[in-house]
Formats: sequence, structure tokens, C-alpha cells
Amino acid sequence: MAAFELDHDPTRWGRGSGDGLTDAAQTFLVQQVGVGQARQAPGWDDVRVGPSRLGAELVAGLARLLGADHVLVDDAARRRHAGGLSYLDLLARRLDAVSAPDAVVLPGSEADVTEVLAWCEANGVAAVTFGGGTSVVGGLRTGEVDRPSIMVSMARLDDVLDVDVESHLVTVGAGITGPELERILATRGLTLGHFPQSWQRATIGGYAATRSAGQSSTGYGRSDEMVESMVVVTPRGTLRVGRVAASAAGPDLRALMIGSEGAFGVITQVTLRVRAVPAVTSDTAVVFPDYEAGLAAFRAMAQSGATADVMRLSDPAETAVTLAMSGPAGRGAELLDRYLGVRRVREPSMAILGWEGTRRAVAARRVEGLGMLTRHGAVSLGPTVGAAWRRHRFDGPFLRDDLMDAGYLVETLETATHWSRLTELRSTVESVLRAALADEGPGPYVMSHVSHVYDTGASLYVTVLARQGDDPVAQWRQAKAAATDALVAQGATITHHHGVGRDHAPWLNAEVGSLGVDILQSVKQKLDPAGVLNPGVLGLS
Amino acid sequence: MAAFELDHDPTRWGRGSGDGLTDAAQTFLVQQVGVGQARQAPGWDDVRVGPSRLGAELVAGLARLLGADHVLVDDAARRRHAGGLSYLDLLARRLDAVSAPDAVVLPGSEADVTEVLAWCEANGVAAVTFGGGTSVVGGLRTGEVDRPSIMVSMARLDDVLDVDVESHLVTVGAGITGPELERILATRGLTLGHFPQSWQRATIGGYAATRSAGQSSTGYGRSDEMVESMVVVTPRGTLRVGRVAASAAGPDLRALMIGSEGAFGVITQVTLRVRAVPAVTSDTAVVFPDYEAGLAAFRAMAQSGATADVMRLSDPAETAVTLAMSGPAGRGAELLDRYLGVRRVREPSMAILGWEGTRRAVAARRVEGLGMLTRHGAVSLGPTVGAAWRRHRFDGPFLRDDLMDAGYLVETLETATHWSRLTELRSTVESVLRAALADEGPGPYVMSHVSHVYDTGASLYVTVLARQGDDPVAQWRQAKAAATDALVAQGATITHHHGVGRDHAPWLNAEVGSLGVDILQSVKQKLDPAGVLNPGVLGLS
Repeated sequence: MAAFELDHDPTRWGRGSGDGLTDAAQTFLVQQVGVGQARQAPGWDDVRVGPSRLGAELVAGLARLLGADHVLVDDAARRRHAGGLSYLDLLARRLDAVSAPDAVVLPGSEADVTEVLAWCEANGVAAVTFGGGTSVVGGLRTGEVDRPSIMVSMARLDDVLDVDVESHLVTVGAGITGPELERILATRGLTLGHFPQSWQRATIGGYAATRSAGQSSTGYGRSDEMVESMVVVTPRGTLRVGRVAASAAGPDLRALMIGSEGAFGVITQVTLRVRAVPAVTSDTAVVFPDYEAGLAAFRAMAQSGATADVMRLSDPAETAVTLAMSGPAGRGAELLDRYLGVRRVREPSMAILGWEGTRRAVAARRVEGLGMLTRHGAVSLGPTVGAAWRRHRFDGPFLRDDLMDAGYLVETLETATHWSRLTELRSTVESVLRAALADEGPGPYVMSHVSHVYDTGASLYVTVLARQGDDPVAQWRQAKAAATDALVAQGATITHHHGVGRDHAPWLNAEVGSLGVDILQSVKQKLDPAGVLNPGVLGLS
Repeated sequence: MAAFELDHDPTRWGRGSGDGLTDAAQTFLVQQVGVGQARQAPGWDDVRVGPSRLGAELVAGLARLLGADHVLVDDAARRRHAGGLSYLDLLARRLDAVSAPDAVVLPGSEADVTEVLAWCEANGVAAVTFGGGTSVVGGLRTGEVDRPSIMVSMARLDDVLDVDVESHLVTVGAGITGPELERILATRGLTLGHFPQSWQRATIGGYAATRSAGQSSTGYGRSDEMVESMVVVTPRGTLRVGRVAASAAGPDLRALMIGSEGAFGVITQVTLRVRAVPAVTSDTAVVFPDYEAGLAAFRAMAQSGATADVMRLSDPAETAVTLAMSGPAGRGAELLDRYLGVRRVREPSMAILGWEGTRRAVAARRVEGLGMLTRHGAVSLGPTVGAAWRRHRFDGPFLRDDLMDAGYLVETLETATHWSRLTELRSTVESVLRAALADEGPGPYVMSHVSHVYDTGASLYVTVLARQGDDPVAQWRQAKAAATDALVAQGATITHHHGVGRDHAPWLNAEVGSLGVDILQSVKQKLDPAGVLNPGVLGLS
């Protein structure tokens, strides 16, 4: 990736957003969703955060542990760590309703973290681990915590500690970001291959804490599968979970800590499984005559082991948007029109496929994959659209800023289910969202894609655009509840890769059962009996 | 597999063993290990099991719950369920030191299991889940339980409940065996593809409870990866863990129940990920000039994603045994001699590779794999040896019976580590075993193979043959302790696929740390506060 300057402006994703929507986007929105009521974000320094609830004595106590330089109570630091990057978090900043942590601390070692947690226990202060700050499910929303709270920033714990090239393993401090890790791995011919949309900011510890999946997860695996072992500092001691590639030594405690979202401990160190940098990367785009044909092709590829590393299938609604917006001056739309003219299909569904590896392996796998796609009616759009996807694949968060400036609700929802239930799930969830967000205008606009495929099922990622209502928080909550209720009723998962945070917590009971929640609470009680760790996340306290 | 009559004779693996060792085997043993002191097993009916500690009233109580037909207290039934099939278990039968459960119960439903567990709690009786009875780590050894105990047999919970062909999912009662499941799946064109050496007896619930791996796990994955979801009946309610292919809804409770070895609950139902029956199966055998070349080839295949579905690399000691014993009249040895003559290698290491899938996919993968093997110096032995491996791949347990009859200690030990540590691990563990089992004879004979490869490491499976000592139990315990201490010191796992049971339990603390054990104990306390479930397994109570 090109270097990318991040300023951690709490109001938006980063510099470069706020440039406004293109003419094509504005035309599309007015036609499909209606005219939004512009609601410009405040400037960086205008976000108010209120006074810290930590008195001078407590701050001095933290400074004795970590050094004064590593305990931040100024407004700028607290503002930068005030929540994550969910729609609600961004909205709070625009509505001048931000809750900031009472301090930000920067431990420099595992021992520092242990001391900070002991201090929190002794002083009745909550500790929320802050990696890249990119939670989109309210994982970092300290405004909902019932006591003073500090953000435990992982920023100083960002070293590469060991590289075992022979074993394809790298051990890092949990605070290292994806770009920095990839930069260092590249010098050894290695890559992690994990590219969530939050890649420019998110940390390795955050990937593991939230069970993140990336754009190449079909090929490279989810973050769950990338963790060989971890160090987790808890108020009751330090856990080292995971050891070797595979074990039968009882239940897998690594899987209990992955996805624990800071409720059980602070992940300070992660040993990751890495791969050789691919010699070749080959992306392509194809169009299916309809969505069902695309699903059948993706399922056939998954179940025969002939997957590409990136597999993304857009429904007709997303296909229309993608092609209209992609390339210079509607080049994508032109290609689509040509395709449509020849085929006379009315519901085109576009897919992006990406293969990575040695030249020979990519060539062989590509031939096999394209053969399966073709047998299901896919027609190639050539390399332009595929390349455009790769170039713009981290653009979503920027676009979200611009859409919010223009007065739109923009949200995504992600789930997964079995192949046999995917069509019904999509139809149900989209109907529910349309009903929940209906207004007097033409919108909302609901579109979706499948972007992670498995032998037994696939993810479903739904994007919804609507005009913001008068009470945008209530509007969002109502739509979120309706959609998540529908997921539960369909037997799908409440989240495929965003995590639980606070926004999904009310439905965790439906996902794992009350006894399942009891188990999580027992583990919490064992590791964090005073309940200082990210209270409320996963619904645990 | 050909139909295979199992009689569940508690003294040995099955009919067909006890035929005695071949001349070639006897010659080898005398030369390499020395002459054993024959110790013939007792006959089926001669194994004494002692009286049941359950009085008539308790038995009547169980009969009221399940029906009298499903509560067995006769010697024959108790003898058939008296422990597993570990070396110590087999030895106990030969030494007339068997501890049998006080009764065997056969629940017919999830509700039955719930009632049995409640009854156990109320009456202070331990409940040990019995699937195929093939534990080789003391998972079923009720003689070490501090109270009366019953075996909860899964034999009646063996139905195929649902097949979702589109999603490649099958839901079964946990008591179904591998052969029965494969027979039913085959009628739908599907296979589980899980073939542990215990396949003829072991149950699906047992696979999941012990984190079993099979001979094709490099291709098909471990049992951990085959479970989409499970129903687990605990004394505090019924858990449904797992839901869809992938989720980010908090920690993965499925991974907490997989490997729980009956300590947290009774797995009654499992939804499994299955595959299409392969059109083609292609096995081959190759010989490397030395073991290190074989390891390098296997590592290259694993790290480039060019794995075969079966990958097994024998060290020179195992290679010598395998080739000498395989095929009619030393045909394998003859092939080896031809190879050695041409190449003048002194430490040949043989590998078995198996590919499965569509004709086209197998052809392509085979070419790629054989290319990598050849570049590392491998020479093909042709199809004969590979076919012999597949034909005899379930023979190990039979041979063990014969070796014990002839007075030999025969045991296996399995672990896994990173690629960079594998050579040192093998050398250390083998040295420790040789020292621990040294006697005045030429033995012991120690040999090993790698049979499961991962990007970051591989399994190591060590077989040891020695003459039985005067106190064979103490002899085994001492060697086991020395070897497991060595695994721990090397940072390897204490078990790659056999599980923990009671034999590995003393080292679980070294594997997961005392805080890790505390977490397991907390979960146990939540789900089984009276401690009725398989007390002592995993070291939990």
C-alpha cells in the first residue's frame, strides 16, 4: 500500500475524506434514496469531551507506574480515544454527544499492563484496551461504562519480537498495525495476508480480540486461524494460550481468548502464522446472469476446494452501484452495458475473484476457477474492474464520511449462514431493513454481497443507505434491532466478523444460549473478578 | 472398508488379532529388541471385574428412568466397558487388575441423558461417557474414580438425523461409528473423510470429545475443524455450541467443548462438515535419501499449499521396519534394496502420499506435489507400497495385541511442534525413550513418523518397542513420564491427537499454565458443580 497519513481525527476516518461525493454518486442518491439533510461534521478541535473524572491523585498514581509521559489526560488525547468508528460513534461526534475516557495510558511492557490492571482493580476504574480504535460495534464506547474508565493504548507495544522464517511464524506486540507488520514482513519475503477494511488503522491484537476477517480470508483464513499463540494479561495473571500448530491437549483456550474483546484480559503479544509473499496477484471481475447463478458457482468452488483467495459476489443492487461508480467516467457501466446488450440479462451480479501465489499455482488455480465460473454462466469483464476493486478496496470508510456529511444513514450488517439458507436469509433481512427505514422518499437502498465462502455456507454483507431521520440515533437503533432479530429468527449468526461489542450484546444470548453466556460470565469472574475489563462488552460485567 | 466383525473383547482389539507374529517380525524383534517373555492374554470370560457397588435400589432407580433393558449390571456388560484401549488398559486385563464401572446405562434421547446426569448428582455417582471405548490415554479408566461410577453408553444415540446435501452438513447422534456414518453418507455421495486408526470402533462424539485427527487430516482437517455445531447435555442444562460456518459472536464455545473429554457434558449430537466422495484416490510411496530431505519436502508442500491429503514421512528406523514387513515375502525390502543399490544412500526415509478428489484435480495436484518431492531428492517406489499402506492402515492395534502376547512393551507417543524445532524434538524424545527403556538386551527400538503437516509445523508420532519388564506398569509409567517431561521441556504439545485423559493430565498444567487450568476448572464448576462428569479426566474434579 502507498503510505497513508492517518491523523486519528475522531470525527471521520482520515484525511482525504470530506472531499464530497462525486456527481455520479449524488445523482444516484437523489434518485434512489432522496435528498439528504446535510449535517457537516464539526472540526477536530470542536469536539467537546467534558472533564476527566480522575482526580490529580489518581493521575499521579498512574504516572508513578508508567511515567508521566505515558498517562494522558489532555482533551486532545482523550478525544482521539473517545470510542470507535461505528455509525453511532461517528454520529455522537456530529451531535456533540461524545463520551471520552478519563485518561489514556500507554504501557510499554507486559509488566506495565499487569500493574495498570491491578491499579484499576484497587481504584474502581474500568480498563478498555485500545488498539486501532476501529470497532464498528461499540466495543470502545466508554460512555456506557458505569464508572471512571481509562483507555489502555497498545501503541507502545508494537514491536516485531521474533521471526521464525522456517516455521512461517512471527511474534509481535499486539499494538502493531497491519501496514507496519506487512512492511516488516515484506523484508523477509513474508505476508500475513489479512486485509480487513480497517487495515490502515487496526492492530493485530484487535484482529484477534474481535475475530476479524479480511478481504482475502477465503484464501488466507480468518484472524481466528492466523493466531498460533497469544499472551493475555488478566487481573489474575498472565495466560499463554496456544502453543503449536495443532494439539489435542484439552479444550482450545486460544479460541476462548480470541473474540473476547478485552473482557477477559489484554492481549499483549501474538504469534501469527504468515505466508510467503505471493509472486503473482491476479484479480478479475465477471458477471453472472443472475445472483443465484453466482451463488451456485461460489458454492461449487468452495465445496470442491477450488476457491480463489478473494471471492466477492455482489447482488444486482450492489452490482449496479459498483459498476456505475467504478473506473473513469463510468467505464464500468459501459462494460456492463455491453454485457447486458449481448446477453439481455436483467439482474446482473458481479463477482471479484483474486488469486495469489506462485506464477504456476495461480495459473493453474485460475484456469480451474474460471472454468467453474464459466460453467455457471459467468462472463469476464476483463481486468479493469478487478484492478479498480483492489485500488479502492479501503475506500469504504472515506465514502461513509462523505455520505454522513450529506445527511445519509449508511450502515453495514454482516452475518453468515449455510448455503441452503442463504437466499431466504438475504431476502428476509433486506425486507426487514427496507421496512424499518422506509420514509416518504424513494429509499432506502439496500444491497449486499457474499465475500467469505466456506464448504458449508457463506457470509452475507448488507449495506443500507437511507436519509437520516430527525432522531438519527433512534432511527439506527430501531433498524438495527429489526435486522438483528431477523438474523436470529433465521438461525444465522449475529455477526460474521465485526464482533459483538455493545451493539450486538443484547443478542448474544440468542446466539450462544443462556448457559453459553453463563460460561462466558464464569470465565470473566475467574479472570476479572472485579469486572474492570471493558465492562458491558459482550454483555458481560 | 471390508466388513469387519467387532466383538468388543476387552482383552484385545478384535477378532483376528492373536494370530501371532510373522516370522519376519519375530526375527526383527529378536535382533533389535531381544526375546520377550510371552504373556498370553486371558480369555474373554476370564477377565474378572468384581461386584457392582450399586445396590438394587439404585439400579431400580436407573431402570425407572431408562427402562430395565437399558441398565446393565451384568459382568459381561461391565467387562466390555471396563476402560479403554491404552497399553495400561490392556495390561490391566492381562494382569487381572481390571476396574469395571458399576453399571452401564444406555440413554435413548437427550432427555434421557439429562435425567441420568440429574440422577448421578442426586446419588453421588460418577458418569463417564462411553463412545467406542478406544481411548488410549486413560479417558475411561473408572478404577481411578473416587466413587461409584456408571458408563453412559452412546450406543443408542446413533441415528443420522439430517443431511443437508447443499450445505455439505450432516447431523448425527454422537454414538454413530465412523464406518456406519461413512456407509450412510456414501449413499448421498458424501464422506466425512476422518480415518483415525480407531476408526472401526470410535464414535463421532468421541472424535469431537478428544480432538481426534485421522490419517487424511492433512487434507480433510482434524475433527476440530469438522464440527459445525454440537449439542452437549450438562448437569446445568443443554448447550448448543456452534451455529454456522464462521462467526465473530464472541469466544468460540464450540472449541471449549471440543476436547472436553466428557468433563463438561455429554455430547449427544454433532453436525458435521462433509465432502463429496472423491472420484479418485491415488496413493504413492517415495523414498528420500535422508530424513531431513523428507522434512524439507513436506515443509515446502505445506507452506506452498501444495499438500497431499495423506502425508506420512517415516524416519529411517520406521522405514526399515515398514519395508521389511510390507508386501509378500519382502517385496518392499526388495524395492528398497534396488533403490539403495542405485543411490548408495544409507538413511532412506519413506513417505506415503495420498491424493483424493476429482480426476482432474488429483492429476494436477499430484503432478505439483510429486514435482516438489522430486526436487527434494525423492524417488518413487511405485504404487505397490502405497497400496499396501492403505490396505493395512488399520492394522496397528491388531499387531499391538500380538506384540503384547509375545511379551513386548509397545507404545506410541504423539506430539507436534514448529518446523524449526522438529529435528531437535525428535532426537531428544527418542534419546529419552531409549534411556528410559534400556535393558541388558539390544533394545529398545524407537522409530517415528510425521503424519500431519501444517504451515507452521508438523506432528511427530513415535513408536517404541521394548521387552516388558518385571513390573510392566511401573516400567511404562517411568518411560511415559520421562518422555512427556521431554516434550514439555522442548515446548512441544503433550498430545497432538490422542487427548489428555488421565495419562497426560499431570502435564496439562505445563501445557496451558495454572491459570489455564483454573479456567477449565471454572467452566467445570459452572456446568458440573457436583463433579459427576468423568472425574479426573483432564485433571479436573
